[in-house]
Amino acid sequence: MATFGLVEYKDANPEVRAVYDDIMETRKTDSINNFWKALASDPASLKRTWEETKRLMGPGALDAVTKELIYIAVSVTTGCSYCIKVHTAAAAKKGITDTMLHELMSVVALANANVRLANGYQIDIE
Amino acid sequence: MATFGLVEYKDANPEVRAVYDDIMETRKTDSINNFWKALASDPASLKRTWEETKRLMGPGALDAVTKELIYIAVSVTTGCSYCIKVHTAAAAKKGITDTMLHELMSVVALANANVRLANGYQIDIE
Amino acid sequence: MATFGLVEYKDANPEVRAVYDDIMETRKTDSINNFWKALASDPASLKRTWEETKRLMGPGALDAVTKELIYIAVSVTTGCSYCIKVHTAAAAKKGITDTMLHELMSVVALANANVRLANGYQIDIE
Amino acid sequence: MATFGLVEYKDANPEVRAVYDDIMETRKTDSINNFWKALASDPASLKRTWEETKRLMGPGALDAVTKELIYIAVSVTTGCSYCIKVHTAAAAKKGITDTMLHELMSVVALANANVRLANGYQIDIE
Amino acid sequence: MATFGLVEYKDANPEVRAVYDDIMETRKTDSINNFWKALASDPASLKRTWEETKRLMGPGALDAVTKELIYIAVSVTTGCSYCIKVHTAAAAKKGITDTMLHELMSVVALANANVRLANGYQIDIE
Amino acid sequence: MATFGLVEYKDANPEVRAVYDDIMETRKTDSINNFWKALASDPASLKRTWEETKRLMGPGALDAVTKELIYIAVSVTTGCSYCIKVHTAAAAKKGITDTMLHELMSVVALANANVRLANGYQIDIE
Repeated sequence: MATFGLVEYKDANPEVRAVYDDIMETRKTDSINNFWKALASDPASLKRTWEETKRLMGPGALDAVTKELIYIAVSVTTGCSYCIKVHTAAAAKKGITDTMLHELMSVVALANANVRLANGYQIDIE
Repeated sequence: MATFGLVEYKDANPEVRAVYDDIMETRKTDSINNFWKALASDPASLKRTWEETKRLMGPGALDAVTKELIYIAVSVTTGCSYCIKVHTAAAAKKGITDTMLHELMSVVALANANVRLANGYQIDIE
Repeated sequence: MATFGLVEYKDANPEVRAVYDDIMETRKTDSINNFWKALASDPASLKRTWEETKRLMGPGALDAVTKELIYIAVSVTTGCSYCIKVHTAAAAKKGITDTMLHELMSVVALANANVRLANGYQIDIE
Repeated sequence: MATFGLVEYKDANPEVRAVYDDIMETRKTDSINNFWKALASDPASLKRTWEETKRLMGPGALDAVTKELIYIAVSVTTGCSYCIKVHTAAAAKKGITDTMLHELMSVVALANANVRLANGYQIDIE
Repeated sequence: MATFGLVEYKDANPEVRAVYDDIMETRKTDSINNFWKALASDPASLKRTWEETKRLMGPGALDAVTKELIYIAVSVTTGCSYCIKVHTAAAAKKGITDTMLHELMSVVALANANVRLANGYQIDIE
Repeated sequence: MATFGLVEYKDANPEVRAVYDDIMETRKTDSINNFWKALASDPASLKRTWEETKRLMGPGALDAVTKELIYIAVSVTTGCSYCIKVHTAAAAKKGITDTMLHELMSVVALANANVRLANGYQIDIE
């Protein structure tokens, strides 16, 4: 299906190019992930998703590294293979070490196990 | 919403009563779980779901106890509180001991943890 | 089902009491959450789950606050109501402010949305 | 594993061929998706699943396009890559435009986000 | 935790009140769901979520009824009890009949079953 | 990322080798699945996960075949493609026939459907 193809920079309309430019500037990179190129087939969705992502993933009461770890935890829990690969690959650039990623995976595994124990034992709020 | 209410035996039409009778006979009981009473607001769905459940949960290459354990494993993994309560409460009648249920919960927790490790470490098929 | 009831300290055997004592000492509290009291009907599972939780949730390459946030992210994504209530209630004791929790929820919501966009647009790894 | 291979029409027994014929006639096509070819290693499951799918996905109080969109929403939410590819590829034949698919993906993403906000904020029924 | 309480109209600051006013006007109602009252403890999240929801759930290439059905499909699949109750209760106001809701539930159940068959039989894209 | 690569036996440190040896002896095989080779980049996680898996998946109140079926049920429900492939491939060695696997898949599909009916009809505990 044509619209689910990837929109390359050279083929993009001005609205899409403006988002691409902001992504590259914000992320200090000169390439655009396929996630954004695919969303660009629906420019309004691209713009909305990027602006939301940019605003929420930047530092606030939580720093950007912590937010990235939370984002990966969701990707691992829901099994989004693309998300896991892109975000773990990008982690190092944000200062996330391999040891931190290992601990992240162990905590995500533990929490997924304990959630099922809480479900299975039908535990009521104290 | 009226149709999402529970259909009691005395208020049921003949099609629904026939299913209720079959449930009570199959399960050697004289009460009907709320799951069936709620589905009965859509009699076609009640009939289809009961017949499917009756056929698949009976003994085959897998015995009925094993199938019940598998069913609970899905209920715990997806967090269906109603399903867990009803099926663990009914387990004893099928010969499932508490020790078996404890092991079931431990295996379900382990599998949910290991699934996330497999996801997180992005493991390719060998 | 008896074994899915809660094991109170006064009724616990020495193995369970030893775990309860360690939980209260580690967490600087004199009460035990229902999660542990329910697991205690299977003392081996209680011991294993507590030791795993204690080891993994303590500070390492990631600090304990970050691990707690990751744990809550998994609980929210999988919809474990008990887990969310207990862990957000305990968050303040670990130094997690309300503003941090708000940002956590926003990031978890965003990641769950973006995971579905990545799924839906069938994005291949670059 | 042999039985998880695909059963081609020429190798199929009469029971399986009858289902394949019905699929091709119902869907106005002369090819069979791998989903059905895989299920055919268990002919009873093939027959049951096809008949259920045929009955439920046809027009009723909801038209067939709406049902297809609902089906894709479930596939995207649960991350079934095969299901998403097959059903979005088939969408155009049913009159689903690219713009409709874009809106579908945006609504599915929104709902998945809002579900987690509802979970995270532990909202009680009013 | 105070901030996870519900913000009532009379206690709301002007930013929150403006959102509440828009919700009531858009939805032709004089009450606010707890979902929005809970989000209001983080006014920025309330505003963002409402504006996104308002924009995406309004009619476009898909009509508002279809979007509502998709939204409920996600809520049912992920097991968000609050979301299901609020959205099925509101469905009638949007012209969704009980018969449509019954079909919705049947299609959601079917899709969740078929997704697992596709997973379990490890079906490759044709 | 280097640490997410696979640790081969010849490159493994003594701690990892000891686990690999135990895996091969326990499973009566001379090869190691990629799951373990990937975890080996975090030797503590490898050791913990293997010991947990070995202890819980061995025969107890439930036999090893039943536990394997439960494990696959979780893998199918959560959509872990790697887990499904490895565990269904290994099933035959444990005495699981193709007919048993077919029934497993049917029960998992049924349970996933019924869970959504229970969710959708908002059924209260009787």
